[in-house]
Order: sequence, then C-alpha cells, then structure tokens
Amino acid sequence: MFARWKDVPVKEPVKGVKMRVITAEKVQMVLFDIDPGCEIPEHSHPHEQMGTVLEGKILLRINGEEKILERGDAYIAPSNVLHGAKALDKGAVVLDVFSPPREEYR
Amino acid sequence: MFARWKDVPVKEPVKGVKMRVITAEKVQMVLFDIDPGCEIPEHSHPHEQMGTVLEGKILLRINGEEKILERGDAYIAPSNVLHGAKALDKGAVVLDVFSPPREEYR
Repeated sequence: MFARWKDVPVKEPVKGVKMRVITAEKVQMVLFDIDPGCEIPEHSHPHEQMGTVLEGKILLRINGEEKILERGDAYIAPSNVLHGAKALDKGAVVLDVFSPPREEYR
Repeated sequence: MFARWKDVPVKEPVKGVKMRVITAEKVQMVLFDIDPGCEIPEHSHPHEQMGTVLEGKILLRINGEEKILERGDAYIAPSNVLHGAKALDKGAVVLDVFSPPREEYR
C-alpha cells in the first residue's frame, strides 16, 4: 500500500496539534505537525510509542526526564510511561509510531 | 529513552545500503540511507513493515506493484508480502518501522 502524507486527512486532537495517521495491523505511523508553543499534555497509554523529529524543535518529557529534541533526534516512550511534549520556536514535525495501533486515532 | 540518529552505529547489510536501528519491545525504527542505484532485493518476512521517505527518491515494489516514492510518501509492506527497493537519482533516506522488531537488525 502506498500513500502520500499530504493526502491523508488531517485531525486536530488538540488546538495547534495536527495529525495524519496511517494504520497497519501491528503498527501505526502518525505524522504530527505542532504549532509553536502548543503542547501535548502529559499522558500515558499501553501502546508503545517511538518517534523521530523531522523538523523544528520539541521539548519532550518522558518518565520525568526532559530533553529538547530537534531534527535527527529520536525517542522511545515505553508502554504506560508518562510522556508529554511542547513545540518550541517555529513548531515541530514529528513522525511517531505506535504498536499496537491506537484505535481512537484510526 | 532519547537518541540521536547520527550517534547510532551504522551497519551496511548490502553494499551502498547503510542502516541505523533503534529497537523497543514491540516496534523498531530503522533509518536507511541508500546510495544512488543501490538495491534492496525483493524479500519478505513475517514482520510488518511501514516506512516514510525523508529524502531522495526510491523505486519501491510491493506485492508486484511498483511506484516511485519521494519525500513525504509512505508505504505499508504487510507481513509476508514480497517487497524490494532501489534508490534513484541522488539516493534516498527512508525511515522504516518493523513490528515485531527484526532480531537480526538489533
């Protein structure tokens, strides 16, 4: 299956946080486009999450540890571990993956 | 867990195909950097695979269907489905994910 991210419908779960989702059976890719200063509040879920910053800068907090990530940086948020993010400066584009897929994101 | 892709050790499973791997429990991210004209021959594996092209152009063949993918394009190679790739022009950088992780890539 082939897809073009720009043709994937956009959802905005939090104001200033746009997401596009491509879901397979075991894994789901989510392209987040986060406006400057916008936050994804701390939360956790049983789904394992990994991600890579493609553009911009993001302040990421995982299990109480904070770090500024930029293009070329990656992270793992293990199952049920608290994590949250805030886009800095000019915002950020982050490619995240979830396993299993998050049903509410389909 | 935080990581910087450029600090992840490089492997070269096929000449001209460099890969960096970050593995979690259920999912694994692999950053492929493929030289122009280099190929990943057709193969299949039980692991589900998805990917996004970050740079360059790649000719991707999945289950007999061929398409040229470039920055912003994505694909799914389902479990046990034949797929292969060839980097075009100036090569390609592709971020792939596997679930479950491929043990031989750790």
